Amino acid sequence: MANGKTFADEVVKALEEARGPDAAAVAAAAARNGLLTKPPGALGRLEDLAIWYGGWRGTDRPQVLAPQVIIFAGNHGVVAQGISAFPAEVTVQMVANFEAGGAAINQLAKMYGAKMDVVALELDRPTADFTQAPAMSADELDAALQAGWDAVDAGSDLLVVGEMGIGNTTAAAAIAYALFGGDAAMWAGRGTGLDDAGVARKADVIERAVSLHKGAMTSPMAVLAHVGGRELAAMAGAIARARTLGIPVILDGYICCAAASILAQSVAGALDHAVAGHKSEEAGHIKLLEALDKKPLLDLGLRLGEGSGAALAIGVLKGAVACHSGMATFAEAGVSDG
Amino acid sequence: MANGKTFADEVVKALEEARGPDAAAVAAAAARNGLLTKPPGALGRLEDLAIWYGGWRGTDRPQVLAPQVIIFAGNHGVVAQGISAFPAEVTVQMVANFEAGGAAINQLAKMYGAKMDVVALELDRPTADFTQAPAMSADELDAALQAGWDAVDAGSDLLVVGEMGIGNTTAAAAIAYALFGGDAAMWAGRGTGLDDAGVARKADVIERAVSLHKGAMTSPMAVLAHVGGRELAAMAGAIARARTLGIPVILDGYICCAAASILAQSVAGALDHAVAGHKSEEAGHIKLLEALDKKPLLDLGLRLGEGSGAALAIGVLKGAVACHSGMATFAEAGVSDG
Repeated sequence: MANGKTFADEVVKALEEARGPDAAAVAAAAARNGLLTKPPGALGRLEDLAIWYGGWRGTDRPQVLAPQVIIFAGNHGVVAQGISAFPAEVTVQMVANFEAGGAAINQLAKMYGAKMDVVALELDRPTADFTQAPAMSADELDAALQAGWDAVDAGSDLLVVGEMGIGNTTAAAAIAYALFGGDAAMWAGRGTGLDDAGVARKADVIERAVSLHKGAMTSPMAVLAHVGGRELAAMAGAIARARTLGIPVILDGYICCAAASILAQSVAGALDHAVAGHKSEEAGHIKLLEALDKKPLLDLGLRLGEGSGAALAIGVLKGAVACHSGMATFAEAGVSDG
Repeated sequence: MANGKTFADEVVKALEEARGPDAAAVAAAAARNGLLTKPPGALGRLEDLAIWYGGWRGTDRPQVLAPQVIIFAGNHGVVAQGISAFPAEVTVQMVANFEAGGAAINQLAKMYGAKMDVVALELDRPTADFTQAPAMSADELDAALQAGWDAVDAGSDLLVVGEMGIGNTTAAAAIAYALFGGDAAMWAGRGTGLDDAGVARKADVIERAVSLHKGAMTSPMAVLAHVGGRELAAMAGAIARARTLGIPVILDGYICCAAASILAQSVAGALDHAVAGHKSEEAGHIKLLEALDKKPLLDLGLRLGEGSGAALAIGVLKGAVACHSGMATFAEAGVSDG
């Protein structure tokens, strides 16, 4: 890197310098909202969503025309600790399934008019088992962040980042524990289907990992390097890139929110361009959402990952924006306004 | 009516005779669900939705291709009691807005690929003020039920019924109180924006109405005639017709659920073909949903009516069905199944 800076440093700097939403567009969208043919506030959170989206897109009559879903896949050395109900080879098999159009996220992206990209991150070279050593070197972290950063299409107007990576709820839990404290058990959930013994083993793995690296995890980006994973870093890179481009983001479940937490803990307001798509069934997710001060749009018992909950919320956001930008005003429709 | 029967009687009889979902299709859809490339149960409520929908459509790989949204509009004599924040002429003005494409429901129907029909029910002839007399005669009830029954397109594969009618949350509350008891205040909400004094007045109106007609309300259909309204009766007629045609229904907010309650209290299982699209902000809605044993799909603070919350849930149902019918199985995708 030029002058010794890492790309992780550059991402943080970019977030510090990134502009917020367009205040004039927010004001104009709020004013328009007040004129539409409905009782004040009757569209509830749809109204807030549309105004928020308009602010980031710089217009009081936005449209959602070009959503992008990016799925990042990575493998995790920590699977050696027996923390997943599925074998590690499922990661590469599911990447093939994404590419063939057979996964849940393919159907949802298609349904809600999103283009979908799949980025497989060195699947044949898992991160290190972070109970033994840092998951990634600084260079490996930078490469994964850069892969996420580069994957964002600057022409898109909405971003969902999803993931696939056997073992990655353990990495997400370790990040959450390292960033927000509490105890390891509160962040360890069932993932793809662990039994009670598996969950206890996972909590122990998280405890050992965070204890081992505590002294070295001197920043959120260092947490990401030590107990994260490539797809988590790539998600963080993509969400950061979207922030610099003014592209709104819908956050998915536990793993996505753990990646996003790295940014939020690095720079205040780093996730102002993001809403929470859903609350997943993974036990720690609601606690992460509370830590991020994000209220989920949906709560449908999903625990799949792949960006599926966030993709489902594209449908909701599109409805919100369609109402806001397509409805007649009281004056236009000749309706008495109470 | 032939042999002295009313159309209301015929609707109840049709519900008693209506077939349930296709058990073989339910079983086949559940079996297919177990083979799809995801951990068991990882799509949460989407899985239940898709199986339920497949059962009613008689196939293990359903599609949602032809949703119909019908908006019924009616006027209410009870507005003379000062129970709405908007004047009664707004009903006809909003019907014009629906026909011109300017309302929220127009945008949502278009977004989720539904055709939309608007049925205005004698707007220049409001129902009687039900604090003084029955809202509708038996003939008027029959005409409104028939209008709803006839409005359902037998070629549709999903139905949302919405409404417009200044004063109709008061009718809905009176129905809920008459059917489910409790006290009047628990069913009286803010509607389009009443203040506390208005809500208290509304509770008093409901109390007086139910007290006046108590002796005559000997069946759910009699409740509908005495304290309901034309658009509520039409919604009930449409939901009943959908049941006989095997067309699944997404229920909307308080008024829709009050209309649906008439059917549920008339015939056990009458709403097996229906799911709750959302929980609205109208205070009594969640209690009605509990009485109907329906768990809402969305909770976004809506209180607009027009079928808006249910229309939003079309997007969720379409996503659920797309996953179920479009995903690859473990065998097809060559993915290890844990």
